[in-house]
Amino acid sequence: MVVKSEIKLVKNLQQKKYRNQHRLFVAEGCKTVQEVLSSGFAPKVLYSTDKNALPDHEDLITLIGEKTLERMSGLKTPNKILGVFEIPKKTALPTNGWVIALDGVKDPGNLGTLIRLCDWFDIAHVVCSMDAVDCYNPKVVQATMGSIARVRVHYTDLTSFLLDFPGESYGAVLNGLPIQSTVFPKEGVLVLGSESHGISPEVQGSISHQISIPQIGHSSAESLNVATATAIFLHEIRRSH
Amino acid sequence: MVVKSEIKLVKNLQQKKYRNQHRLFVAEGCKTVQEVLSSGFAPKVLYSTDKNALPDHEDLITLIGEKTLERMSGLKTPNKILGVFEIPKKTALPTNGWVIALDGVKDPGNLGTLIRLCDWFDIAHVVCSMDAVDCYNPKVVQATMGSIARVRVHYTDLTSFLLDFPGESYGAVLNGLPIQSTVFPKEGVLVLGSESHGISPEVQGSISHQISIPQIGHSSAESLNVATATAIFLHEIRRSH
Repeated sequence: MVVKSEIKLVKNLQQKKYRNQHRLFVAEGCKTVQEVLSSGFAPKVLYSTDKNALPDHEDLITLIGEKTLERMSGLKTPNKILGVFEIPKKTALPTNGWVIALDGVKDPGNLGTLIRLCDWFDIAHVVCSMDAVDCYNPKVVQATMGSIARVRVHYTDLTSFLLDFPGESYGAVLNGLPIQSTVFPKEGVLVLGSESHGISPEVQGSISHQISIPQIGHSSAESLNVATATAIFLHEIRRSH
Repeated sequence: MVVKSEIKLVKNLQQKKYRNQHRLFVAEGCKTVQEVLSSGFAPKVLYSTDKNALPDHEDLITLIGEKTLERMSGLKTPNKILGVFEIPKKTALPTNGWVIALDGVKDPGNLGTLIRLCDWFDIAHVVCSMDAVDCYNPKVVQATMGSIARVRVHYTDLTSFLLDFPGESYGAVLNGLPIQSTVFPKEGVLVLGSESHGISPEVQGSISHQISIPQIGHSSAESLNVATATAIFLHEIRRSH
């Protein structure tokens, strides 16, 4: 039996302030919950309308009705299962290796895809400005496809972080040095700006190199999506060594 | 004055069958409509709740009330303007240059981002399998950021297309030749599969080369998003020449 206050708590976890207050986040749907579980996150509780939704975790499941799931869910069409997980403790900011820094990235899908890319390219840390979208937003969690458990996401003042980081920093801008002419060192920070405003002037001032992906031909595309641009940068950074 | 049947027609354009029947599609919101207009699409009609929503096109605007816009819109929160545009006439399939072929790509955001990438890398044609998402789906149009007007999207039987195309074809798979060891020719087809099933066995049989983006380190990311993978492939194809 699930009481009203419990439904309200789960529903509230759609909002950042309640996630921070309770140090809990939500993942929905069989595939996403399975990935978050197998990536090692500690489940607080798993609600499901189907006792067999997760064959290896029947013992963890609290059976609920369709109506209750609808009331808890952030999805238009809830999908059988909703898991509540603990947000891991904060860890120290990275001081070596390659790091991705994101200035004001707001789109949950973009942040999720970026985290998945970092996982693929073995980048252990993403450092976000304080105004970037929360990585435990349910849409971010879904877009990471489980990578959220393997990549550490930090929120801090980017300018201070860049000044403290011992390696060089590379800002992705529209008219920088072409990426093909850039020789990347063994460690550093790649800085990407928001979808609509790019890197803010304050952060820009702390970056040592400005780099770009040149546009081909006479095309008039305005810009690349932040996640697709990052894919190309990370591929180039990793091919350098 | 907008009559009921007109509202119904616009609303129906959210669905592919009506778009095909009327050869019309919808773009919503000031930014998207502006981009579609400036990319050269012919507007059939622009509805807006604000006569000054598009400063250079006041003469084209039909003023409507908030309630009417809500009834026409496919968005949860309609944004001032909705444009109805003509779908361009079908053109011949490409027979040279570099072409992107998409087998069963279903996610509108992914197709939109892919079209935007093609625009950036001067790829003029995208050839989709018949079951791929429609490129005039409003979510695709929005994700292309105007590139939909500069890249031709075709729907056809991919196997026949690959057999007819004179150049080599390269399929993006999980365990193919590493992309760094591939020397790309001056023209060819890059084939990408669906988000969940990859390239279908039938299409696979018509592809001359299997290529991959190697994963770095001991990461366990399941795969790259189709758009981010394409970004890396196109970057490599263009750096070859």
